[in-house]
Amino acid sequence: MSDLMEKAKKVKQTAVILGKKSTDQKNSAIILIADQLEAETSWILDQNKRDIDEAKQKGFHDSLIDRLILTEQRITEMADALRQLVHLTDPTGVVLESWERPNGLQIEKIAVPLGVVGMIYEARPNVTVDAASLCLKTGNAVLLRGSSSALYSNKALVEVIQRALSKSELPKDAVQLIEDTSRETASNFFKLKDYLDVLIPRGGKKLIKAVVEQSVVPVIETGAGNCHIFIDQSADVSMAIDIIINAKTQRPSVCNAIETVIVDENWASIHMDALVKKLQDKKVELRVDEKILQMHTDLVAATEEDWETEYLDEILAIKTVSNINEAIEHINKYGSRHSEGIITNSEENVVEFFNSVDAAVVYHNASTRFTDGFEFGFGAEIGISTQKLHARGPMGLQSLTSTKYQVRGIGQIKNG
Amino acid sequence: MSDLMEKAKKVKQTAVILGKKSTDQKNSAIILIADQLEAETSWILDQNKRDIDEAKQKGFHDSLIDRLILTEQRITEMADALRQLVHLTDPTGVVLESWERPNGLQIEKIAVPLGVVGMIYEARPNVTVDAASLCLKTGNAVLLRGSSSALYSNKALVEVIQRALSKSELPKDAVQLIEDTSRETASNFFKLKDYLDVLIPRGGKKLIKAVVEQSVVPVIETGAGNCHIFIDQSADVSMAIDIIINAKTQRPSVCNAIETVIVDENWASIHMDALVKKLQDKKVELRVDEKILQMHTDLVAATEEDWETEYLDEILAIKTVSNINEAIEHINKYGSRHSEGIITNSEENVVEFFNSVDAAVVYHNASTRFTDGFEFGFGAEIGISTQKLHARGPMGLQSLTSTKYQVRGIGQIKNG
Repeated sequence: MSDLMEKAKKVKQTAVILGKKSTDQKNSAIILIADQLEAETSWILDQNKRDIDEAKQKGFHDSLIDRLILTEQRITEMADALRQLVHLTDPTGVVLESWERPNGLQIEKIAVPLGVVGMIYEARPNVTVDAASLCLKTGNAVLLRGSSSALYSNKALVEVIQRALSKSELPKDAVQLIEDTSRETASNFFKLKDYLDVLIPRGGKKLIKAVVEQSVVPVIETGAGNCHIFIDQSADVSMAIDIIINAKTQRPSVCNAIETVIVDENWASIHMDALVKKLQDKKVELRVDEKILQMHTDLVAATEEDWETEYLDEILAIKTVSNINEAIEHINKYGSRHSEGIITNSEENVVEFFNSVDAAVVYHNASTRFTDGFEFGFGAEIGISTQKLHARGPMGLQSLTSTKYQVRGIGQIKNG
Repeated sequence: MSDLMEKAKKVKQTAVILGKKSTDQKNSAIILIADQLEAETSWILDQNKRDIDEAKQKGFHDSLIDRLILTEQRITEMADALRQLVHLTDPTGVVLESWERPNGLQIEKIAVPLGVVGMIYEARPNVTVDAASLCLKTGNAVLLRGSSSALYSNKALVEVIQRALSKSELPKDAVQLIEDTSRETASNFFKLKDYLDVLIPRGGKKLIKAVVEQSVVPVIETGAGNCHIFIDQSADVSMAIDIIINAKTQRPSVCNAIETVIVDENWASIHMDALVKKLQDKKVELRVDEKILQMHTDLVAATEEDWETEYLDEILAIKTVSNINEAIEHINKYGSRHSEGIITNSEENVVEFFNSVDAAVVYHNASTRFTDGFEFGFGAEIGISTQKLHARGPMGLQSLTSTKYQVRGIGQIKNG
């Protein structure tokens, strides 16, 4: 049997058992994992070094190598995150609704684990521990598939998790890593409908596209963020500039950073100079529409491609519009339904923007950088969903649950 | 441009407009559709007759023709259902949660329409009106694709709906029918990720399998029901027999009817004769395991295929087990995660069954036939979801909604 099928079967067998464990049993296991990670730090770092050495030999970029590197401190941080996770409320087992029907049937809607979560992700080995622990906390078994460049690290981390689980009351096999990182195995992974209840990809656009297009398992699409902020006519100048600088430059490589600023032309005619100057001071490369180009002939003209691009870099497109409707139209045409903001003093325009912009999170007078499970107060984040089914926006522990109806009768049968 | 793309674009353009309409505006439009259906009854019946004539020419089964037939009464029933729908609560626009973050950000989670719903279904033309009206009630635009055998009927019904919409405050183009019923167009329909937010198939196993395997659009899987009832050792005899007869024979062709009865061997040794006799009186064909075969040599032996089959007919498989765990194991192996019941007087076994059986709805001492949006009291039913994402079990209006976070600030930016 292939590595994939063997592990899929193993993990599936644990799902029912895991789903019946108490919150205390799950929390104790998570603490054991934290302890085991710290106890085996030097071995984990040795294994991680094998990945780093290979990556260097292959001439990988420094930024990629930085994402791969584990340090004593990073492992301590992982362990601390696990100990924090224990304090979060377990969303499973909760009665969400209950009612009685006229025929006397008692119906309860209960939050239950999804079952088996498939997770496919790139580079960072910390996702291995993060994904595994969030799944265990919610009573889910998990089948992981990381990237080949982090294989030694991921294998070590999963072994450590399994060693911790074998001391716990949870099934040891509830966390499994697919070690075959070939593309063919990835494709087969996406087809495991009888073994996986959901597939969550975490990584670049290309990975997510491949999963969405190929998967037979239901997918939660995460990540892509072509985000905008619209500076309305009545926007406060310093607030607008501060928010744009923050949303673009505080961490340009993340999905909730903005890629295009849309500016009302009346605001632009007075304040565009100041905005452009501030952005240039921050070394942001600008791609602007024709109207701005006329005033700032030194800037680069934006093309159709710029409106579509998630730069994830210190590049920003700027477009002028004559009213809020044009701004909304542009966002709904080019946005990736992630996070979209308006800066304005007009409550009427806030309402119009909130009701018309199709996105997971809409903002008034705040940076889009707050689209994040921790910033929302969820205490954890599985990812940021950009689809509309199941979960939308930052996903906390509840996103890893489904529901089950429990119906109690005294012999009721259906008439008619 | 193809019929498919033209209609996908049309319908997509209406989604934002539709999403902003008030409950009153949506309800008024639904009443107009009811009136228009009744006013155009004779024309609808004429068009329906063209489908019936073609079906007869092609030598279709009577049962299929029966599903196609519209009558004055069936149209009145459709119109009445629409007038009932008006009284249901509109789930959109509701603030589901709201909180303030320590930095002063105000976060609201709002129920919003999904956007554009794609619906692919077989035969019955009443689904056209049903699907369209449930979508409109929840502010969703809808792209319909019915079967070729109901094409004239579906075209007529959608034209009638559009004529009603053109008198209403909702956009006329919010309901569209794909008239090209080729398999190629169906495949292209499943790929319309930029136009559809969800795809809901309603029909047989083959259709649903094709959608799940081919769709790039998120799917809500509905329908397949390989349902079981387990008669535990302590089950009340007459209650058990009544429930089994009801769950199998009251309407064998539906997904919440049972296909296999699992019987505790101690119960079986005393009461199997009575159960078999009652089922035979009802003309149910039985396929039984070896243990029952020894006692009832006149019955047919069940094969592996029987455990896997959703008969949707007056056929029932019967299996004996020595304890509840074997029953649960059988159900989790062969069940389609739809509806599963236990008949018992042991509360301990109810809890074990409820916690261990992986299904949308679990029953104690009641017929599985109650898995239905109307029986649950939802007042409407989109379908019965057998997947765990988004919605599970009978889907009411809320299943046609997503959420959106609306965040209000006073200039907050992210530090760090």
